[in-house]
Amino acid sequence: MAAIYTEPHQVTYYESDTKNQMTLAMLVNVAILVSERQNDQLGLSDDVVHGYNVGWVVTQYQMEIKRMPQVDETVTFGTTATGYNKYFCYRDYWVDDAQGQRLATIHSAWVLMSYATRNMVAVIPALVQPYAVPEIKGIKRFPRIHHVELADAAQQDYRVRYYDIDANQHVNNVHYFDWMFDHLGIAYLSSHEIVSLNIRYEHELTVDDVAQSHYQITDHVSRHQITTADGKCAEAEVVWRERG
Amino acid sequence: MAAIYTEPHQVTYYESDTKNQMTLAMLVNVAILVSERQNDQLGLSDDVVHGYNVGWVVTQYQMEIKRMPQVDETVTFGTTATGYNKYFCYRDYWVDDAQGQRLATIHSAWVLMSYATRNMVAVIPALVQPYAVPEIKGIKRFPRIHHVELADAAQQDYRVRYYDIDANQHVNNVHYFDWMFDHLGIAYLSSHEIVSLNIRYEHELTVDDVAQSHYQITDHVSRHQITTADGKCAEAEVVWRERG
Repeated sequence: MAAIYTEPHQVTYYESDTKNQMTLAMLVNVAILVSERQNDQLGLSDDVVHGYNVGWVVTQYQMEIKRMPQVDETVTFGTTATGYNKYFCYRDYWVDDAQGQRLATIHSAWVLMSYATRNMVAVIPALVQPYAVPEIKGIKRFPRIHHVELADAAQQDYRVRYYDIDANQHVNNVHYFDWMFDHLGIAYLSSHEIVSLNIRYEHELTVDDVAQSHYQITDHVSRHQITTADGKCAEAEVVWRERG
Repeated sequence: MAAIYTEPHQVTYYESDTKNQMTLAMLVNVAILVSERQNDQLGLSDDVVHGYNVGWVVTQYQMEIKRMPQVDETVTFGTTATGYNKYFCYRDYWVDDAQGQRLATIHSAWVLMSYATRNMVAVIPALVQPYAVPEIKGIKRFPRIHHVELADAAQQDYRVRYYDIDANQHVNNVHYFDWMFDHLGIAYLSSHEIVSLNIRYEHELTVDDVAQSHYQITDHVSRHQITTADGKCAEAEVVWRERG
């Protein structure tokens, strides 16, 4: 039986947007925090993982959002690992309201990256066994993300700022959401909310990088790509609905 | 006896910088959250204050920082009102570590702004009496902030982004710290930490504004000014020391 970890969280004003709803960046920040707490509880703190000279890197999120938590609302974040294969580990997150209604679900895929080579390495059994999840055959398929046609896309530059950088000298990848959505503009963002989002991360950004944020939008679907001079860093596809 | 409110806070990874220390922006965010909790406890929630068609606006912070809280560290945030006169209310904040050592102190000055006129109005007795603080004669003097000589200053533009905007359609003023410090550069910021900071706010920024961030630096003192096309928004003076 896979280990489950849950923790309450009260949404603060500084985690919220113009509509007093939790931002997607903050929702993912808290989700990751909750899985770090589970790691600690199972004896797999960052320090233990780093002792193998590797670190976990997320490669994909698939999110479904019924509604975002509101400022001052206390919700419950939960997480569990769901399986692993030779290279990938899969983990789910969820957010429930006080009545137990599911507000959001996130499926995710992770790999171990070697600090020595900065490349992906095979899963290390000691780093997955405590989660009590099955080894699975094959690779879990996430929904296809349709590419942005860069030649036809709107583009805006976002220089990486000092406070975007974490202690590993990389950009916390929730900032990609800000870069992807900001130039949809306040008129669109304040009249629409996210129904679902799929994002795939390919390369990390670091100090002195400039993120080029490209998007195309048709009806209620936006496609996004973040690039640097070195190539593609992430791409995403988002379904929106008009706010009620 | 003035009412005091305290609350523990465990610093998370996403509140921290490249040195695993809480960012100044997040420290101020949590301080303000704690004073909102005191407001709620004393029956002076935002809704009650807004019922008078006014809101509290900070005009000045004076901060002294012995050391910033570290990631995962649990500290105690405290706050108390310290006095008021015809127009200004004064409030202190502090952050203590688990041993009761004071890590940071913030003195602040606040005014009531009319939602109808967007101008300052006289203090409303019902909105200060619950804090049980004395009416004081005269105005508390904060340390002088030496002006930036704009013609000689380094300058960089920071366009206001969607996620900088709060539910009042204004920029959360902690973002000014990011704009002020970011272009000091990673070499300076990762080798220095803040000893003290004085900031005075003059005008708010809103959607579609571009913040021009100007600074001059001599030895271990930096002076900053944020302007828009409409004039000065804030100015600050910061004393730094080299990290140990």
